[in-house]
Amino acid sequence: MSMAMSEPGPTAATSGLEGVIAATTTLSKVDGTNGRLTYRGYNIYDLAQTTTFEEVAHLLWFGHLPNRKQLTRLMARFAAERSIPNNVMQIIRALPTSTEPMDALRTAVSAWGAGAISGKPTIDQAIALTARFPLFLAAFERTRQGHEPLQPQPKLGLAANFLFLLTGEVPKDEHVKGLNSYLVLLADHGMNASTFTARIVASTESDIVSAVVAAIGALKGPLHGGAPSKVQDMLRAIGTVENAAPWLRAAIARGERLMGFGHRVYKTEDPRSVALREMARVTDPQGFLLARHVEELALELLQQQKPGRRIYTNVEYYFATMMGSLGLSGDLFTPTFAVSRCAGWTAHILEQIHNNRLIRPDAEYTGTAEQRFIPLEKRP
Amino acid sequence: MSMAMSEPGPTAATSGLEGVIAATTTLSKVDGTNGRLTYRGYNIYDLAQTTTFEEVAHLLWFGHLPNRKQLTRLMARFAAERSIPNNVMQIIRALPTSTEPMDALRTAVSAWGAGAISGKPTIDQAIALTARFPLFLAAFERTRQGHEPLQPQPKLGLAANFLFLLTGEVPKDEHVKGLNSYLVLLADHGMNASTFTARIVASTESDIVSAVVAAIGALKGPLHGGAPSKVQDMLRAIGTVENAAPWLRAAIARGERLMGFGHRVYKTEDPRSVALREMARVTDPQGFLLARHVEELALELLQQQKPGRRIYTNVEYYFATMMGSLGLSGDLFTPTFAVSRCAGWTAHILEQIHNNRLIRPDAEYTGTAEQRFIPLEKRP
Repeated sequence: MSMAMSEPGPTAATSGLEGVIAATTTLSKVDGTNGRLTYRGYNIYDLAQTTTFEEVAHLLWFGHLPNRKQLTRLMARFAAERSIPNNVMQIIRALPTSTEPMDALRTAVSAWGAGAISGKPTIDQAIALTARFPLFLAAFERTRQGHEPLQPQPKLGLAANFLFLLTGEVPKDEHVKGLNSYLVLLADHGMNASTFTARIVASTESDIVSAVVAAIGALKGPLHGGAPSKVQDMLRAIGTVENAAPWLRAAIARGERLMGFGHRVYKTEDPRSVALREMARVTDPQGFLLARHVEELALELLQQQKPGRRIYTNVEYYFATMMGSLGLSGDLFTPTFAVSRCAGWTAHILEQIHNNRLIRPDAEYTGTAEQRFIPLEKRP
Repeated sequence: MSMAMSEPGPTAATSGLEGVIAATTTLSKVDGTNGRLTYRGYNIYDLAQTTTFEEVAHLLWFGHLPNRKQLTRLMARFAAERSIPNNVMQIIRALPTSTEPMDALRTAVSAWGAGAISGKPTIDQAIALTARFPLFLAAFERTRQGHEPLQPQPKLGLAANFLFLLTGEVPKDEHVKGLNSYLVLLADHGMNASTFTARIVASTESDIVSAVVAAIGALKGPLHGGAPSKVQDMLRAIGTVENAAPWLRAAIARGERLMGFGHRVYKTEDPRSVALREMARVTDPQGFLLARHVEELALELLQQQKPGRRIYTNVEYYFATMMGSLGLSGDLFTPTFAVSRCAGWTAHILEQIHNNRLIRPDAEYTGTAEQRFIPLEKRP
């Protein structure tokens, strides 16, 4: 999501469908002008403060927030799905330890789907998939570190289980709360590139796993999933509050992109960044001080450089700050985004097939005019 | 690609981006009104008659048909890539034998990419991927049949190697020619759903394998990749020329869809079907007689039923006839489509990143208006 400081204007060839309505949705409303994001009418600020990821997944899949009984039932269904079939575990172990975690996730989900999923997408399948994302990632993380994968804890929710499976320690409450907020904030976001990808695949009447595997591949791209580990690298390189001004001035003078700034949709502060900033203040007070200082200074400098254009921190900026304090490897940041977005992807897939029509746009042909065929032996 | 006999008109919600220009391309021109298809200006009739799949892949990737020397070089590069790493072979063996071949292909490609591919998409990567599609599919086919995978034959091209690796026999010339024609005819087709999917994934600056894995998932859907095995089932159920009329009349009366008829883009005969019909006449003269009779009769009956609307056979119709004669299992038809389209997908990915902008459309929110948050204990 990081944006180059100067960017060519859109052309017919590369307009990226900006502003084109690709579908209607009742799931989330992205108000880029006012910096508001709602899921089925609920402001994400409220959701990020008090609801768990499972409650938000329920909201997206079933259309309403669960009451206590419905939540208990959903948690039980999640718990029942927390297993990795032996053959999928074999496949995770067969991946080179140098595999990027997004590739490991893509492969594990694809392999699991090959054995477990067929027929039209359902909420049951969405639960089964979403429950397994943290398991696949943690199994790969443990394997590449040379450790045995751990067994999930039946009493922990998805966020706490993810941290437990990665680290082998029952996580602190504020870490679980921080991760939960993140998972809530990133669960859906209108017609972003990965969600659109998932909907196109679903529109062919393919299966839910094919659609989600496709979405993982789209989220892997830094223009979509971002490069939060690079935010961390940048903040590490800056190191101290004192070093922020000279470092940023030099980077801007060299024409470098600052990591964690800019988003195509938001013309004002990204509401998710605002919420994550509050979480980062609590989960990592030390890191927060530096991050906040760098943010304020960078916005000031960018503003001076291009007075007409306002650029803000995007969602990966405070996520990087927060995730560092949870002890997660930098290359697990985008996969953690995938853990969250899986709820949105699957909800969109279910919405797409409800009143489906194949998504098949046109292309404008700008190539060579029809020409006479040349047999092999006569070609120049 | 089979089309229901009655189909609701497009609405704002489900228009499927029909007629929306999503990108420009110099690769193929689909002229649905006149039933013409060209690759970089060459009519596919000419290409299907005399060129190999490798020549067409060269045309798509490098921009021109290869001369003898360039073709020899490309064939050598393909031959050098015809191997499966041990860990990917382990992963293929770990899939349940009941796995759908498209799921096996999706998983094998994903696993191979995890170890072999990083960085920006290149033609070298496109060759490495396209060369391996037949290997992954044949390895899975042999494994599920309880046989050991075979070693590719260095002197055979892609089509012949595919048939050899599946059957263990050096294929007849007319079978190689028939499969080659099919692979040539299906290699690219404008902005279809799987190609569009691949371009969106590439537009996030993700890798070539993520984009191709996504495309495989889209092609798996019957509204895109079709259901050629169902054409075969239909022709088997009809069985004889004499049975065609009563069978078709009864099916149409029951409102059933006829398999292998209809395509969103073509308002006249699909030029690929016309070319494949000629191939089927040669590779399977017996099957051709029945298929041709059923086609003519069905078009007549459909015409009587809906006088204003012309429906024609689509590309899967004669492919099913032809593939049957090659001895391939019905569930390998769509994967064979993928073997061909891999050339087009990778060419489109390279075209997309050449002058890239993230493809990110909008959604129209039609859900609940903003509402007050309800804490868990107060929910109904």
